[in-house]
Amino acid sequence: MNIILLNPSDITGETARIDDKATITHIRTVLGAGVGDTLKVGCRHGLIGTAIITQMGDDGIRLGMLSLDKSPPPKLNLTVILALPRPKVLRRLVMDMTAMGVNRIVLINSYRTDKSYWGSPLLNKIDEYITEGLQQGIDTVPPQIVMAKRFKPFVQDELPAIIGDGKALVAHPYADISFGRAVQDGLPSVLIVGAEGGFIPYEIELLGSVGVQAVSLGSRILRTESAVNALLGRWLN
Amino acid sequence: MNIILLNPSDITGETARIDDKATITHIRTVLGAGVGDTLKVGCRHGLIGTAIITQMGDDGIRLGMLSLDKSPPPKLNLTVILALPRPKVLRRLVMDMTAMGVNRIVLINSYRTDKSYWGSPLLNKIDEYITEGLQQGIDTVPPQIVMAKRFKPFVQDELPAIIGDGKALVAHPYADISFGRAVQDGLPSVLIVGAEGGFIPYEIELLGSVGVQAVSLGSRILRTESAVNALLGRWLN
Repeated sequence: MNIILLNPSDITGETARIDDKATITHIRTVLGAGVGDTLKVGCRHGLIGTAIITQMGDDGIRLGMLSLDKSPPPKLNLTVILALPRPKVLRRLVMDMTAMGVNRIVLINSYRTDKSYWGSPLLNKIDEYITEGLQQGIDTVPPQIVMAKRFKPFVQDELPAIIGDGKALVAHPYADISFGRAVQDGLPSVLIVGAEGGFIPYEIELLGSVGVQAVSLGSRILRTESAVNALLGRWLN
Repeated sequence: MNIILLNPSDITGETARIDDKATITHIRTVLGAGVGDTLKVGCRHGLIGTAIITQMGDDGIRLGMLSLDKSPPPKLNLTVILALPRPKVLRRLVMDMTAMGVNRIVLINSYRTDKSYWGSPLLNKIDEYITEGLQQGIDTVPPQIVMAKRFKPFVQDELPAIIGDGKALVAHPYADISFGRAVQDGLPSVLIVGAEGGFIPYEIELLGSVGVQAVSLGSRILRTESAVNALLGRWLN
């Protein structure tokens, strides 16, 4: 946690309270902070600043001298559309995409998505993963999350509006053009990454029919998690 | 596993044997392969090709019609120097760097490295992580691994020769120049990434004294794992 996120309802004037057990443990043990110490804090959907610990008990931490005066970093003009990955990988991926400032995350079904993933209880924890990502990336504004359990209706009915005037790329091992070359004249606003094994030809064709260009990442095959982070690296400035 | 790695000693003419339990389980359950099926295989330090399963027993798999005729993908002209991360993270990082073709991986001590990490039994498993990475990235040639438990002697006595005529960058939140700008005129041959919390000013200065340029990754702070993959994304072509 590089910033402690507060909910607007936890703030009263220049004071605030932290009740979340994981956050309290983090402040105590990882930050090793105590009464009198300054914390970097942010208000969810709002500004970033500092506060001082005025009270520490097992049931909560009280903050004083809360001062929120800095805007969170701007979001990237980027939607990442991801075939739903293994639930365990999903946590780190949502965290990382959030920390890096992705504006919208679409989790989509695909032919090679393991259908059981959609029933995972971890899908209900996405808000927690987003909070972890915001606290990692020093941000306060969650990305928009969209669940698209049906591939074709999403691609045909919703994706065109998301692409708009922007460029959309899908990572595909058998594409002729490389990602590196495709981004030379500008970064895309939509990035699509498949499950392990990628998309099937029908899916690539359907994406192509709404203007999505297939790009290769080279002959080496990467884990989904590694591929997404590697792609997002282009947005580091 | 996108390729099954064989040891030279497991190969006899056009036949080979697989004794490793994890590999046998993977072939059975993940690939769902049986007698008569073709596997993509490679010989450690050697060529890539195919073989056919001729026998499957609990004690091993026998392959026939082994044909190795393709070179592994070229390695990147890149050394990554990494402050030793949390052992759990080390596995995925070594896997990913190997899969992406990093040529040399140096694990270094730093002021903010948790000293207990050097005693972790997982450090003895690096060869396994490398094998996993090679099998992920369809490669047969392991990267060179260097352990540098002493920061200053490594930087002063060994790093200059590794940098040679190349460019060396260290990720540092407080640098004036961004990574994106620093690589515009060419990719570095040495990339240095710190532990959680980064390097201390003394370490950045020492690195600077042998020609390493500090570059910022922007205002967002990334997990080491995410940062390394994001940086390596520049080498995707």
